[in-house]
Amino acid sequence: MSDPRIEAYFDRLWPICRSITGNGLRQSLSIVSEVVDALVCSEVATGTRLFDWEVPLEWNIEDAWLECPDGRKVARFTDSNLHVLNYSEPVEKSLSWEELTPHLFTLPHMPNAVPYVTTYYKKHWGFCLSHAEWEKLPREGTYKAVIKSRLQPGSLTYGEAVLPGTSGKEVLFSTYLCHPSMALNELSGPLVQMFLYEAIRALPNRRHTYRFVFAPETIGVIAYLSRHGFGLKQNLLAGYVITTAGDGGAFTYKKSRRGNTAADRMAEHMLRHQSEPFSVIPFAVGGSDERQYCSPGFDLPVGSLMRTPYQTYPEYHTSLDNKSLMDFAAVERTIQLYINIVKGLERNAYYFNTVQFCEPQLDKRGLYNAVGGTKDRARVLSLRLHLLNFADGHHDLLDIANRYGCNLLEFEENLSLLLADGLLEELKK
Amino acid sequence: MSDPRIEAYFDRLWPICRSITGNGLRQSLSIVSEVVDALVCSEVATGTRLFDWEVPLEWNIEDAWLECPDGRKVARFTDSNLHVLNYSEPVEKSLSWEELTPHLFTLPHMPNAVPYVTTYYKKHWGFCLSHAEWEKLPREGTYKAVIKSRLQPGSLTYGEAVLPGTSGKEVLFSTYLCHPSMALNELSGPLVQMFLYEAIRALPNRRHTYRFVFAPETIGVIAYLSRHGFGLKQNLLAGYVITTAGDGGAFTYKKSRRGNTAADRMAEHMLRHQSEPFSVIPFAVGGSDERQYCSPGFDLPVGSLMRTPYQTYPEYHTSLDNKSLMDFAAVERTIQLYINIVKGLERNAYYFNTVQFCEPQLDKRGLYNAVGGTKDRARVLSLRLHLLNFADGHHDLLDIANRYGCNLLEFEENLSLLLADGLLEELKK
Amino acid sequence: MSDPRIEAYFDRLWPICRSITGNGLRQSLSIVSEVVDALVCSEVATGTRLFDWEVPLEWNIEDAWLECPDGRKVARFTDSNLHVLNYSEPVEKSLSWEELTPHLFTLPHMPNAVPYVTTYYKKHWGFCLSHAEWEKLPREGTYKAVIKSRLQPGSLTYGEAVLPGTSGKEVLFSTYLCHPSMALNELSGPLVQMFLYEAIRALPNRRHTYRFVFAPETIGVIAYLSRHGFGLKQNLLAGYVITTAGDGGAFTYKKSRRGNTAADRMAEHMLRHQSEPFSVIPFAVGGSDERQYCSPGFDLPVGSLMRTPYQTYPEYHTSLDNKSLMDFAAVERTIQLYINIVKGLERNAYYFNTVQFCEPQLDKRGLYNAVGGTKDRARVLSLRLHLLNFADGHHDLLDIANRYGCNLLEFEENLSLLLADGLLEELKK
Repeated sequence: MSDPRIEAYFDRLWPICRSITGNGLRQSLSIVSEVVDALVCSEVATGTRLFDWEVPLEWNIEDAWLECPDGRKVARFTDSNLHVLNYSEPVEKSLSWEELTPHLFTLPHMPNAVPYVTTYYKKHWGFCLSHAEWEKLPREGTYKAVIKSRLQPGSLTYGEAVLPGTSGKEVLFSTYLCHPSMALNELSGPLVQMFLYEAIRALPNRRHTYRFVFAPETIGVIAYLSRHGFGLKQNLLAGYVITTAGDGGAFTYKKSRRGNTAADRMAEHMLRHQSEPFSVIPFAVGGSDERQYCSPGFDLPVGSLMRTPYQTYPEYHTSLDNKSLMDFAAVERTIQLYINIVKGLERNAYYFNTVQFCEPQLDKRGLYNAVGGTKDRARVLSLRLHLLNFADGHHDLLDIANRYGCNLLEFEENLSLLLADGLLEELKK
Repeated sequence: MSDPRIEAYFDRLWPICRSITGNGLRQSLSIVSEVVDALVCSEVATGTRLFDWEVPLEWNIEDAWLECPDGRKVARFTDSNLHVLNYSEPVEKSLSWEELTPHLFTLPHMPNAVPYVTTYYKKHWGFCLSHAEWEKLPREGTYKAVIKSRLQPGSLTYGEAVLPGTSGKEVLFSTYLCHPSMALNELSGPLVQMFLYEAIRALPNRRHTYRFVFAPETIGVIAYLSRHGFGLKQNLLAGYVITTAGDGGAFTYKKSRRGNTAADRMAEHMLRHQSEPFSVIPFAVGGSDERQYCSPGFDLPVGSLMRTPYQTYPEYHTSLDNKSLMDFAAVERTIQLYINIVKGLERNAYYFNTVQFCEPQLDKRGLYNAVGGTKDRARVLSLRLHLLNFADGHHDLLDIANRYGCNLLEFEENLSLLLADGLLEELKK
Repeated sequence: MSDPRIEAYFDRLWPICRSITGNGLRQSLSIVSEVVDALVCSEVATGTRLFDWEVPLEWNIEDAWLECPDGRKVARFTDSNLHVLNYSEPVEKSLSWEELTPHLFTLPHMPNAVPYVTTYYKKHWGFCLSHAEWEKLPREGTYKAVIKSRLQPGSLTYGEAVLPGTSGKEVLFSTYLCHPSMALNELSGPLVQMFLYEAIRALPNRRHTYRFVFAPETIGVIAYLSRHGFGLKQNLLAGYVITTAGDGGAFTYKKSRRGNTAADRMAEHMLRHQSEPFSVIPFAVGGSDERQYCSPGFDLPVGSLMRTPYQTYPEYHTSLDNKSLMDFAAVERTIQLYINIVKGLERNAYYFNTVQFCEPQLDKRGLYNAVGGTKDRARVLSLRLHLLNFADGHHDLLDIANRYGCNLLEFEENLSLLLADGLLEELKK
């Protein structure tokens, strides 16, 4: 009983030919903004310096195909945008098989898959085919390669939405939008992030500021960090790169570089207090945009909570990474887990028991059951006494929950009660 | 071959109706003082403020029973002091079964047990019965409830004995005395503490000051801490709450709130170096008077070394927690374990090898066996060299023993020898 | 296919009667110096104070035997230098069996082994025999004991070779030379150290200074430390006591007293990245010259990398610790492991990625494979990105390798490449 809008957005975003720049990316961001209503798109001009990088020429494509000696057209862009080497320069010329060979890409070990290949930073052109189709191509005669693309000065586009809060602390979600038609390793991330945005927008009394970044992988995030990185270094409480979150596989949480940040602590806590299988792995370079967020100069508290991670499933970076791999009910559960992390980040704070010496007399406040009591009442009382004992200004609510072994959110009712009574106060720090 | 006095004191203390105040408590302390000769009792007047608490009215009781419609008397105080809801206000009135019902307490899942129930901080009266007996009571006719108790301004009583030492550091033992006729969860604690007092008094050249607190649970210890808590915060080296120490079950050591205090380190060390099974559990609120000693404002180095802990055996807080559960030989072994902890705390210190550079030439001092040597001599030499190497002023004797894997007390002979020779000096810190 | 010189040196060193002083020791050092060409021998005069010790009289011996009542000579020094209690005073006298008994040493549980026994610091004389031979000696008649030794003022000898470097940091190797004819627990250490010297001397561009100490156990190292100990305390990066390294048993690394020094970290790292079985054990007093290097006043970063350790094999300290226990191919593998440790210590440093913010653009430097790539290329790229990410000035190369799970030396090629490119700089600290 998943929200049917998720699948509907999948279907609309699927056919668009995205890349790290260009109109496919702009069109995708425009669709995202239907849900992420605060989305603001920024353009960064070709040639702009971004730390060690530079914004490349903008790439757009209209059509492409390879015409065989017998006139048959294969590797047609209109069949699948994966058929074109992404960022191919324009071409229209006749070639022999030998001349064509360095421009064809296949996966011999997966004969039915069209590989996804790019050439962002090296001028090149080419076609990607299934190995099965490649084997059937005649080795004799003249081919004609046609790629109607443009590589021109333009700009790189990224989108950011901000939901402001009052605490002065920020939480970041970041996903990439730059691959053509692929499912887990492209659309799953933006879909989770779109509906996570919607859920957070609906939370009453948000304390923290939430930032949602939709950007092309690597260069887009580098552009984003060139503008916002030093601000994040000041204020970021926790961040997550959302990717490969579309199937029903076990959760994988990849820690931030420092490994013990608020992002890591809260993700691990909420993973322990849900029912699906999960694993936690250390930070490693490789992977996605955590490479930039966790570069040593920034070293931000950014981890990544995924399902089956990139590079560990065979369909990765091929035409087989398609809708058949998606599990939309699991997508919703992933969103729910992120929402629990957000609720935990919202609630976590340092509290102080105003009766520090000996335990408070709960009876006179009607907070202790003097006679009788069911098991549930016993647990409520136990949570309450535990919370009061460790509310010493040195343990945050997450420490307190971890020492008790319960979900931090289980303190909610007691917390409200004890704050209202004045037995607890929240410390600002 | 246990000391027959332990069982004799059990039998004398058993029938007294104790509560958190009153003459039963005073009478019990008077019996305790026959062994604990330095015991001094203090009275704290009704209404005295104790942090968040207040001393309640004093409760005393002479007799009580429930007269059935047929004139038969049940729930007779003279049969068992558990039959009266502890701290019942006085009553003498006739009631129907319906009116009586909220005043009767039973345990349906343990039909032969009389439950132990209290109402210290809420005015109430009642009777506790076995569920079997309750089922036989007629549902028709008029009952007569009689409780000859008094709730009047008076005082709360606690006892403390001090065995003074010279180090300026203090060791605390604390047990509660406030339950009526129960064994493990009442008398076992005071009995262990009485004879531990006697053993410590007999130790020659005590270094530390020892405090022995016999007080009603919770309110009594809160009263004690209101007078002595800040002094303990200055000087307390280690403390232990002694409770449920009367059976032959495995030892359970519950750590102090900080978890790595001298109390914890020494208890765990001595548990590892004895032969009975044991477990070590983290601090948790719930339990006994460690709730007060380890409240965040005090956060004292107080753990609890028990046998089968409260709440984990089915007879807990019922009439079935009686002498049949006691194992007096095990009580003596518990006392012996506490004595070893005390000996360890007495001996533990920082020592300094006066030859810091290269090892001392033991031969010229007659401390090395130049030719031959049995296994035992080899172990003595190994202990000696180990002790000299780590006597660097940064490892205390307990660290040194833990690194070697032996009981700290095994260093005794070498320690005396090397101190006498001048190769070791004790550091004051 | 081991270097035949190792076995040849074993054979030449084997028959010499060494002790903690004397001409046997000098003769052995002279042979060592044929390989260790920088060896400088020092003499420390009898009576010199060395911390808590004093240099003893020098001992030399020409011949010794025990003449039986029937004129037969047994325990002949010319058969084995183990027959004489090492450091025996001279004697030439007739005795009954009863008078002789306190001067005879055997091992009843190993009837065919001649024990190795010494009497350095207590005047005595004696003979060591196999228990089988001892049992055949007649209990009646007059024996004649002859020991042609000299105990006279002289000096203690030790040798040191230094291979200078430029970093200001020093690495120490130390082995003992003081036992008469024994293999694992005498000659294996000097043999490893001799050829390790040769290999380190051949290393181009050595950064660190290397010290190689050949000294009598205990007193010789104490003499060495009395002259060099405080310098080592300033400059020593890592040190290793080389002993019992002659058989093919599993490697055993015994940690330094502090347990986390550069010596420990690099030895454990290189052990993890070789193929033979190994174990790592904590520091303990007992053992060899680490007792002096790791005495509390010095507390130097000195561990010990052995094969089967002293005292754990039955032939230890007997005539059965002989060439039959040696495995010369394993000796070479031990040397190789030490060489890898040295290479690791040479290469380990703090590096700094000059592009700290976001990852460097490797493509424009030709350091990234834009299209295609084999598995090996993928690993090289992964190593490169990992190295760049953690080159933050806070992780040394060993930390970086341990986080990646690879041998530190595997970074060599990338390191050179990135240093040459200027993407990495070495930090001086």
